[in-house]
Amino acid sequence: MSERLLYQMPFCPFSRKIAFGLLEKGVPVTPVMERTWKPSPLLLQLNPSAELPVFQDGLSICWNDYTACEYIEDVYATPQLMGVESFDRLEARKIMSWFDRIFYHDVYMTLFYERALKRAIAQSGPDTSVLKTGRSMLRKHMVYISTLADRYSYIAGSTFSWADITVASHVSCIDYLGEIVWDDFPIAQEWYLKIKSRPAFRSFLMQTFPGLAPVPHYSLLDF
Amino acid sequence: MSERLLYQMPFCPFSRKIAFGLLEKGVPVTPVMERTWKPSPLLLQLNPSAELPVFQDGLSICWNDYTACEYIEDVYATPQLMGVESFDRLEARKIMSWFDRIFYHDVYMTLFYERALKRAIAQSGPDTSVLKTGRSMLRKHMVYISTLADRYSYIAGSTFSWADITVASHVSCIDYLGEIVWDDFPIAQEWYLKIKSRPAFRSFLMQTFPGLAPVPHYSLLDF
Repeated sequence: MSERLLYQMPFCPFSRKIAFGLLEKGVPVTPVMERTWKPSPLLLQLNPSAELPVFQDGLSICWNDYTACEYIEDVYATPQLMGVESFDRLEARKIMSWFDRIFYHDVYMTLFYERALKRAIAQSGPDTSVLKTGRSMLRKHMVYISTLADRYSYIAGSTFSWADITVASHVSCIDYLGEIVWDDFPIAQEWYLKIKSRPAFRSFLMQTFPGLAPVPHYSLLDF
Repeated sequence: MSERLLYQMPFCPFSRKIAFGLLEKGVPVTPVMERTWKPSPLLLQLNPSAELPVFQDGLSICWNDYTACEYIEDVYATPQLMGVESFDRLEARKIMSWFDRIFYHDVYMTLFYERALKRAIAQSGPDTSVLKTGRSMLRKHMVYISTLADRYSYIAGSTFSWADITVASHVSCIDYLGEIVWDDFPIAQEWYLKIKSRPAFRSFLMQTFPGLAPVPHYSLLDF
């Protein structure tokens, strides 16, 4: 068996997404810890842009979450996680790209970056005006998640998919900070509790960020 | 037949990529012109992030080049443009994501933005230090294109694929400005001439940017 390695960073939503998807598919990997702002020479050799994650599957090197997700779905086809019909696949990919691009920019890069990563990367504390903007954007995105969760049993259709994996990976990083007022979003909460109860998701709820304790409900399966 | 519309902007490499792919597949679409910095109410309704292009295929609305490209390959499977084996598909997607993320950031957003778009968007002229950085980055990317073009007959393998479509879409916007010193990159030039000679690509070589004439060789099939 050729070696499978996942170069990743804890609380990087893209790394979390690929690790979660691999667990759902039952594909074992060895994690390799990286820091996106201080890439190892090996990571730079595998991927000169140093984007995380990098999934090395024998001779196949997947750069970033897009190529990794499509490759994993292609090569490890069972269980199928991209929707049965072309319309479902489009829906899953639209939701993925929304969270990977827009939610990440609006919420992760304001709240998670300011409150957790900035100290390590820029040696400075959070900017309160950025936090304020991030919190306001988060509420809008939570309304969107509620709308999505209200349509079907899962976020992009009637079956669990990469869209659930993606949204839960982003949401969990923000929930760690205690930024989500779940009482205001009961439908989104119901969906998220369903994802939290999946065995493949449990390991992420056990992770901690150095110097920053999780909100008490972070790992609870009912709250 | 349900209506197919492509909301696009001329010289947007992502719009060009999807329009080029649809032409290669023989899928007719009606173009709808948009400006990314001044989205129409209709565009915002279809895609609240206003990313271009948006491909509307009846009831299926594809946001951005990623969802559009994967949807088109899924629904209009012939001719197949994503590689035959999973390794080819990974290679095509890796090259696509490199140009869509890294080349776009390093080269388009320095050279094309500064020289062409900035006047319309920010009402100001180019910053010479940004142009200098962009030109230096462009040379590095041209070396990379040469390496890719030297391996097989096409950019990601032995057949024409979305990787060729993507790289040519980005390269052609920059070539319009006369920024590429082709004499220094004969292997990349040979590949690009092959793409330029495809009937589906011809229409892009006829486009002009208001107030900015193309370099004389832009539309020539031998130079």
